Amino acid sequence: MSLLVVGSIAFDTVYTPFGMVEEALGGSATYFSISASYFTDNIKVVAVVGSDFPEKYIKMFEERNIDTSGILIKEGQTFRWKGEYGYDLKEVKTLDTQLNVFEDFDPKLSEDHKNSKYIFLANIDPTLQGKVLQKMKDPKFIALDTMNYWIKRKYEALLDTIQDVNTLIINEGEARELSGEYNLIKAAKRIFSFGPERLIIKRGESGVLMFAGNSLFCIPAYPLENVYDPTGAGDSFAGGFMGYLSKTEDFSEENIRRAVVFGCVMASFAIEDFSVNRLLKLKKLDIENRFREFKALTYFENF
Amino acid sequence: MSLLVVGSIAFDTVYTPFGMVEEALGGSATYFSISASYFTDNIKVVAVVGSDFPEKYIKMFEERNIDTSGILIKEGQTFRWKGEYGYDLKEVKTLDTQLNVFEDFDPKLSEDHKNSKYIFLANIDPTLQGKVLQKMKDPKFIALDTMNYWIKRKYEALLDTIQDVNTLIINEGEARELSGEYNLIKAAKRIFSFGPERLIIKRGESGVLMFAGNSLFCIPAYPLENVYDPTGAGDSFAGGFMGYLSKTEDFSEENIRRAVVFGCVMASFAIEDFSVNRLLKLKKLDIENRFREFKALTYFENF
Repeated sequence: MSLLVVGSIAFDTVYTPFGMVEEALGGSATYFSISASYFTDNIKVVAVVGSDFPEKYIKMFEERNIDTSGILIKEGQTFRWKGEYGYDLKEVKTLDTQLNVFEDFDPKLSEDHKNSKYIFLANIDPTLQGKVLQKMKDPKFIALDTMNYWIKRKYEALLDTIQDVNTLIINEGEARELSGEYNLIKAAKRIFSFGPERLIIKRGESGVLMFAGNSLFCIPAYPLENVYDPTGAGDSFAGGFMGYLSKTEDFSEENIRRAVVFGCVMASFAIEDFSVNRLLKLKKLDIENRFREFKALTYFENF
Repeated sequence: MSLLVVGSIAFDTVYTPFGMVEEALGGSATYFSISASYFTDNIKVVAVVGSDFPEKYIKMFEERNIDTSGILIKEGQTFRWKGEYGYDLKEVKTLDTQLNVFEDFDPKLSEDHKNSKYIFLANIDPTLQGKVLQKMKDPKFIALDTMNYWIKRKYEALLDTIQDVNTLIINEGEARELSGEYNLIKAAKRIFSFGPERLIIKRGESGVLMFAGNSLFCIPAYPLENVYDPTGAGDSFAGGFMGYLSKTEDFSEENIRRAVVFGCVMASFAIEDFSVNRLLKLKKLDIENRFREFKALTYFENF
C-alpha cells in the first residue's frame, strides 16, 4: 500500500568523537524513505531541495523505487544542519542551522499523494502537518513526529493536528514536554486524551516503549560495539515501522509489535555509520538476521 | 542450596520529590536477603549492626527463615546513610554517611557459612570480599557487586578478588570505570579478561544487560506509574537473581536468564515504596504475575 512521507531533505555536517562528515545527505524524509524502501516499493516523498541538490541523489531515490515527483527543486540552497555529539552520543549540540529553501516549505500534494494510505508526517511545523492531513482522501494509518521546538512554540496547532493522528512517534523528552508529565505511563495517558490511540516513545539506548490501550511493549536498543552517528536513527525507525506496516497491512497488536522491532532494526543500522552510508548498503538478509538477533537478545522462557 | 550474603545493614534517610523516610531499615544485605527469601529459605546473612539495632528487625529476618547468626551486634551505632534523589530518580546525592560499627567490619564466618554454595559479596571493601572468598570450602556460584569508590581506591585488590568470581553484578558507570571502556560490549570483553565469565550490568530505567560468552541478554526495566525510592533496587535484583538460582541449581543459559527476570521483578517491587516496605508485603503470586507481565511486555513473534 502507498506510503507517503512529508519531511526534510538536508545536508548534515556531523562531528562525533569517532569521526566527522561534511555536507552529507540527511533529513527526515531521506532516512525514512531509504529505511522504508527495504519493505515496500510504493513510497512517495514530499520535500523541498535547493538548486544545489545533486541529481545523483534523486537518482539514488529512484533506483530504490522511491517516487520523487513530490520533491520540489527550488531556486536557492538546500537545508543545511551542523551538529556535534559528545562521547555518550546522547546529547547533540546544534552548531548551525540554515533552513534555506526549507524555510517556507509548503508541501504540494498531487492527486496521487492525496490517495496515499499510510502517511508519515515527519518533524515539520504542525500547521503544515495539519494541512497535509486535511488533504488526505482515505488514509488508513497516520503517524506523526514532532520536536520540543514545536511543542513550545506551536502547542495549540500541534494539539489540533494530532487529534487526527493514529500514532505519535516521539522521543522521551518530547513525550514529557507534550504531556507535562515526567512519568512515561502518565505521559501516555495524557497524550491519549489528545486523540492518538498509540504512542511510540524512542528512548535512545534504552530502546522503545509502545503504549496502546492496555498494551505496553518494550524493546531494548540493540547493543552495538561501534556506534558512529545517531543522526537519523528516529526517522530510520519510523521508516522500518511504517514500511513493514504498509507492506503487511495487518494492524493486530502482534504485527504492530513486529513492525516496531523492524523499526529498531533499521535504527540500529543507521547509527553504525555516518549519514545514510550503512542504510544504503543493506541486504534483506542483514535485516532479517538482525531481527532474529533481537529475538535472541530478548528471549526468555517462562518459569 | 545455601545462599550466603556478606554486606551491610543500615538505617537510611532518603529524600525524594515523592516523599521521605527517616532512619528506615536498609543496607545491601537487608534488601538482598528479604528479596531472596521469596525463593529460598536457606539464606545466611553476615553483617554487623550496632547495639541500637532493634530486636524486631532481627525477628523479622528470622520469621523469613533468614539465618541471622552471622549478624554481629557490636557496641556502638548502626551504619547510617542519608541521601537525596532528584526528580528523575537517577542521580543520588549523598548528604551524610556515618559508617559507625560498619567502619571496621571484619566478616566472621562460621563453619556453616564456609560451607555455603551460593555467595553474594555485596558492595564492601574488595579486600574483605577476597578474605571471605578464600574461606569458602566448595562454592558453586559467586557473584560480586562493587562501586566506583573501590574501583578508584582499591583497584588492585578488586582485580585480585574478581579473578575468582563467576559473575559481576554492577551498574553501567561501574562497568565503564572498571574496564576503562565507555562502550558496554567493549567493557564486557575487558572485564572477562579479569576472570569473571558473566557480567550483569544494571542500567536503572534502561533495564539489565547480561553478557556471558557469546550470549547477550537484554531486558528492559518494568515501566511503573509510581516510583518512590530506587534505594536498594540493585541488591533486590541480586536477591531475586541469586535466590532463584540457588533454588533451581540450574546453570543453563535459559535458567540464568529466568533468574535475571526474577531479579528485575524484585527490583521493580523494591522501588515502589520506601525502604523494604513493598518487599516485605509481597505474595508469591505477585512475583509470578509480574514475571508474566515482563513476558507480555517484551514478547514479539517472529516475522
